[in-house]
Amino acid sequence: MIWDRNKIVKSGIKGDWVMGLHDFVRYSDLDTYDHVNNKIYHTWFENLRIIYLTKSGFDFTNKKNPMPVVRAASIEYNSAMFLNEEYTTIIRCSKVGNTSFDLDYEVHSGLKVRAKGQSKIVMADLIAGKPVPLNSKFRELFIRRDAALY
Amino acid sequence: MIWDRNKIVKSGIKGDWVMGLHDFVRYSDLDTYDHVNNKIYHTWFENLRIIYLTKSGFDFTNKKNPMPVVRAASIEYNSAMFLNEEYTTIIRCSKVGNTSFDLDYEVHSGLKVRAKGQSKIVMADLIAGKPVPLNSKFRELFIRRDAALY
Amino acid sequence: MIWDRNKIVKSGIKGDWVMGLHDFVRYSDLDTYDHVNNKIYHTWFENLRIIYLTKSGFDFTNKKNPMPVVRAASIEYNSAMFLNEEYTTIIRCSKVGNTSFDLDYEVHSGLKVRAKGQSKIVMADLIAGKPVPLNSKFRELFIRRDAALY
Amino acid sequence: MIWDRNKIVKSGIKGDWVMGLHDFVRYSDLDTYDHVNNKIYHTWFENLRIIYLTKSGFDFTNKKNPMPVVRAASIEYNSAMFLNEEYTTIIRCSKVGNTSFDLDYEVHSGLKVRAKGQSKIVMADLIAGKPVPLNSKFRELFIRRDAALY
Repeated sequence: MIWDRNKIVKSGIKGDWVMGLHDFVRYSDLDTYDHVNNKIYHTWFENLRIIYLTKSGFDFTNKKNPMPVVRAASIEYNSAMFLNEEYTTIIRCSKVGNTSFDLDYEVHSGLKVRAKGQSKIVMADLIAGKPVPLNSKFRELFIRRDAALY
Repeated sequence: MIWDRNKIVKSGIKGDWVMGLHDFVRYSDLDTYDHVNNKIYHTWFENLRIIYLTKSGFDFTNKKNPMPVVRAASIEYNSAMFLNEEYTTIIRCSKVGNTSFDLDYEVHSGLKVRAKGQSKIVMADLIAGKPVPLNSKFRELFIRRDAALY
Repeated sequence: MIWDRNKIVKSGIKGDWVMGLHDFVRYSDLDTYDHVNNKIYHTWFENLRIIYLTKSGFDFTNKKNPMPVVRAASIEYNSAMFLNEEYTTIIRCSKVGNTSFDLDYEVHSGLKVRAKGQSKIVMADLIAGKPVPLNSKFRELFIRRDAALY
Repeated sequence: MIWDRNKIVKSGIKGDWVMGLHDFVRYSDLDTYDHVNNKIYHTWFENLRIIYLTKSGFDFTNKKNPMPVVRAASIEYNSAMFLNEEYTTIIRCSKVGNTSFDLDYEVHSGLKVRAKGQSKIVMADLIAGKPVPLNSKFRELFIRRDAALY
């Protein structure tokens, strides 16, 4: 279930998070250790990122548009997660540059932070293969709504 | 969200379905055709199967127990599914044998059946590597609750 | 490594198989049972299918072309597979129809068949959303090269 | 195909890399942009990591042993990769600590670095849930063979 800011705040999670995805761990998330595999957190981040960017006005339908491309990503794992565990993945833009922006993520479960992630996204003209400026409407939205640094 | 029989019936889905998982299509479900990849339906079936079997009393925690093992599976695809589409995967046991049972699945979206699946599950002693009889309490549950043939 | 018919025959595998993909089990193929997960065999079939169809002359680059779409699939599992195990997935067309064709697959390891699969592929105009005839050059190729029934 | 140090050096790749996995991009690696999905590079790193650690003497068969657990990971993406592209993922240990060590990865294709990754691995007693010292034989191996800092 998608969570808006109000729902995130009510759940007790602190910070300028803008959107969340509340779900539970599925069997296909597990690996040979019976816990959630490392890679799966990236899937959770990606799935929320696409929802967040679409709701923020990014248009993925025309692949000739400048597209947000992941340039770098990092993650810290705090503790293992298990089958059926409920969790919320949250997202916000923490920083805007000229052609890029940073997205922060956290995974919360039982009021603990299970993992923290960050990705640097570059706006790219995929046909020309080069970066293009971040549209000012997104820049302003990220600063105003997400409290992004600039 | 997990659906029980009442919720399935209220949604307008016909049949002796016992349990459902209501969800929406994530970005990671898509392939190069921008639609849900064929393999993903098997993931949906598997994730619901584990929940369904656990709630039916199967104990997956002790790997020395006889385990339900997939022996065969089939699927029919009716129509493509797309990003953000809401759907419900449903499950029931349609037949019980001495050492095996059949599980049926469907994926519904917008009151249409998008895919139908079936898998034959064999109870196996994984250490000895051979089939063992299906416990009579599961056999009776499947016949009574799921209207399984026998 | 991709295997042609000669390499398949030399390996001792019987039948009219046309192409193979020889590989070994990776960690990401495993599930909580430390064996290859059921769904992964579908991934192996799909990956080989795309190579096989491309080498057979199908053009996936222009999505306005009629596209081969999976309409139904089935699989039988014979025995578990484990980390680092070498295996070969093989493919051939076993039957051609007017708008569809059947592909057969097997997974061999240590001269044993670990799994057998089949999928029914329909040629579809994805924009109009309807089946179109299988091009006669593919039809003839499948009959001549793969010994497909018709 | 697994590459040893000699094979890596002969291919023209510079650095103290210890092991590689040479492969080609499969259809299942792609996403809606027809290029390799971001998450897949983590799969490549993980699959090579398990081979590398096993060949280095780590014993994954007894889950009561201290286990290497991923504590943090980062990745930089340089350029997109496409279907059938041949590539080599390479690995080495770049640093050892008391209870942890750093693994570096690169993905090379056509003599270009497509992605660079790093992960911090902590040795953990999974039952007690706490870090344990890195066995001195691994420590010495990483320093001697991989030129790891300490």
